[in-house]
Amino acid sequence: MIRIFIASKGDRAGLARLFEAELPEAEVITDQAALGAAPCPYIVVGRPDPGTIASVPGVEVVLSLNAGVEHLLASGEVPEGMPIVRMVDDGLAEGMTEWVLAQVFAWHRNILHYLRVQPRAEWVPEKEKLARDRVVTVLGAGALGGRAAETLAALGFETRVWSRSGRDIKGCRAFGAEDLGAAVTGAEVLVNLLPLTAETRDLIDAALLTRLAKGALFVNGARGAHVVEADLIAALDEGRLSCAALDVFRTEPLPGESPLWHHPRILVSPHVAAPTHPGPAVAEMAANIRLHQAGEPMRNTVDRAAGY
Amino acid sequence: MIRIFIASKGDRAGLARLFEAELPEAEVITDQAALGAAPCPYIVVGRPDPGTIASVPGVEVVLSLNAGVEHLLASGEVPEGMPIVRMVDDGLAEGMTEWVLAQVFAWHRNILHYLRVQPRAEWVPEKEKLARDRVVTVLGAGALGGRAAETLAALGFETRVWSRSGRDIKGCRAFGAEDLGAAVTGAEVLVNLLPLTAETRDLIDAALLTRLAKGALFVNGARGAHVVEADLIAALDEGRLSCAALDVFRTEPLPGESPLWHHPRILVSPHVAAPTHPGPAVAEMAANIRLHQAGEPMRNTVDRAAGY
Ligand SMILES: NC(=O)c1ccc[n+]([C@@H]2O[C@H](COP(=O)([O-])OP(=O)(O)OC[C@H]3O[C@@H](n4cnc5c(N)ncnc54)[C@H](OP(=O)(O)O)[C@@H]3O)[C@@H](O)[C@H]2O)c1
Ligand SMILES: NC(=O)c1ccc[n+]([C@@H]2O[C@H](COP(=O)([O-])OP(=O)(O)OC[C@H]3O[C@@H](n4cnc5c(N)ncnc54)[C@H](OP(=O)(O)O)[C@@H]3O)[C@@H](O)[C@H]2O)c1
Repeated sequence: MIRIFIASKGDRAGLARLFEAELPEAEVITDQAALGAAPCPYIVVGRPDPGTIASVPGVEVVLSLNAGVEHLLASGEVPEGMPIVRMVDDGLAEGMTEWVLAQVFAWHRNILHYLRVQPRAEWVPEKEKLARDRVVTVLGAGALGGRAAETLAALGFETRVWSRSGRDIKGCRAFGAEDLGAAVTGAEVLVNLLPLTAETRDLIDAALLTRLAKGALFVNGARGAHVVEADLIAALDEGRLSCAALDVFRTEPLPGESPLWHHPRILVSPHVAAPTHPGPAVAEMAANIRLHQAGEPMRNTVDRAAGY
Repeated sequence: MIRIFIASKGDRAGLARLFEAELPEAEVITDQAALGAAPCPYIVVGRPDPGTIASVPGVEVVLSLNAGVEHLLASGEVPEGMPIVRMVDDGLAEGMTEWVLAQVFAWHRNILHYLRVQPRAEWVPEKEKLARDRVVTVLGAGALGGRAAETLAALGFETRVWSRSGRDIKGCRAFGAEDLGAAVTGAEVLVNLLPLTAETRDLIDAALLTRLAKGALFVNGARGAHVVEADLIAALDEGRLSCAALDVFRTEPLPGESPLWHHPRILVSPHVAAPTHPGPAVAEMAANIRLHQAGEPMRNTVDRAAGY
């Protein structure tokens, strides 16, 4: 008997129905009180409350609804050796790529500029550039960064991509861990799609931003803690950056008193770049449960030492 | 001896240098007074003043710097039977596609919405959709519309494309002249990239806009006269459209007193979607001159009966 406990916030019943359709033989539990003492090898989580994972009898695998799992690792609530499967599905990669395209093209084609000057009712064409005349650097070549970089390259941007292993992405120039400086120097657009780890925390600071082309765009779809906020604001204020599009923040929801809300060169979106879509997400988790039941290796398990 | 008269506004000397590099054997004339009486078979024009074309001795071919040539046909200044070559080059198709992507993605991912509400400093995620869950219709399947439609389809949008001949575009559903209603019904985005002809003038009116999905986006990168402005404004005011991104207008520059400047749901850009880039443009015109000299058919000649 496959038992699955859905411990996420939000619409548990909706997820349960999807699991029941994918795995008719499974018992899907949405109410902690109904867990009982029988072993329940699978727990589905977002950001679980302390103690939740330990409360599940016989739990073997943690299935994350999120692509980023730094909070699960930091919590210490997942015992050593218990696999964590993070969310990787097509909907997520498509959503993130589309969000990145929206930020990059709106800036590339001066939409924000024209919007700002429109009330003046003056006809003043800016000089337009083609994508092929701009360098874009994507930090992270994983499920999300790889897809975004490949798409930007296919659309004509001269695209560089930076990852630990120097992973090759179609149409892009790949840079490995040691070559961060070369990867970002002179770029007009910097897109962050790294996971949050000990190595990537605070990576985007004054030293890095200074290497970009003057007037560059910074796009953050990953995590707020990748960025030294004071350095970002200084770079915008000094005109070294012309714009920052931020979907993620150190504290979320972004507090009402944060200066980011009111900065004229910052675009805030409320962590909407790549929402998890229940249908494909449950299909992916069910596929991993089937692999686990068959004794085969699961997909997209987290490497604890690497932190992602 | 190949003689070329550059009669366009703007940087004639810059164009002349590019022609001289492409066709070292040619004599390139930028000053009307220097034309003399010797035959000059080629004239390069944007929007020529009345009488300019007739003033060139032995002129045989009109080379347009613009993709749209309705003003040359309407003027009656190009004698019957004299070929008009319109501008088709990669830079133009890339520029237009990038401008269309900027408008479509900014709307698709709610950038304009988040920008409007940002001063409230409230964290309110909108429901996001994937491109694959939206229908986009492109009017025109030519050098510009075909490229834009193919790219939108490659990025996941369910893309329809409408043309006189029902031209097939990769990844899109093609509709012919008779099927305009079916092509636009239920579309969430309508992109206009038609040429301006007797048949397409005022095509985008209340009847057409009413067929779109409620809250649709309208993107006009072609000509202002395709659109019945009062109908467009009414559709926006009634919420049938949520936004219109307009690069082209009946009168350009758009007069300061036009209500379009101040409409909260209209984005105005000053005819910058697809500027002609001198390098590729001259290369394309020089290639056509070589074909003409060799007695071969030129590329992208205008069909006068069709009007484009
Ligand atoms: N805003 C949102 O809505 C949203 C939604 C989903 C996810 N996210 C964020 O996006 C992040 C990325 O997701 P993903 O699925 O693409 O992750 P992933 O598949 O694990 O990819 C991570 C990439 O980062 C590289 N990397 C990791 N550590 C590095 C280091 N120290 N130096 C250089 N490169 C390093 C990896 O290199 P290798 O290729 O060599 O391993 C890999 O290419 C998530 O962790 C999450 O924080 C945000
Ligand atoms: N905003 C800017 O910066 C800018 C820059 C350049 C051009 N433009 C505008 O863009 C327009 C399109 O340029 P293009 O190079 O793509 O033109 P094109 O290659 O001549 O293509 C025109 C397309 O429209 C279709 N068409 C023409 N008349 C039609 C009708 N009555 N019903 C249905 N379809 C019809 C044609 O159908 P078939 O395929 O069957 O022939 C063709 O697919 C230009 O005319 C110009 O007005 C704007």
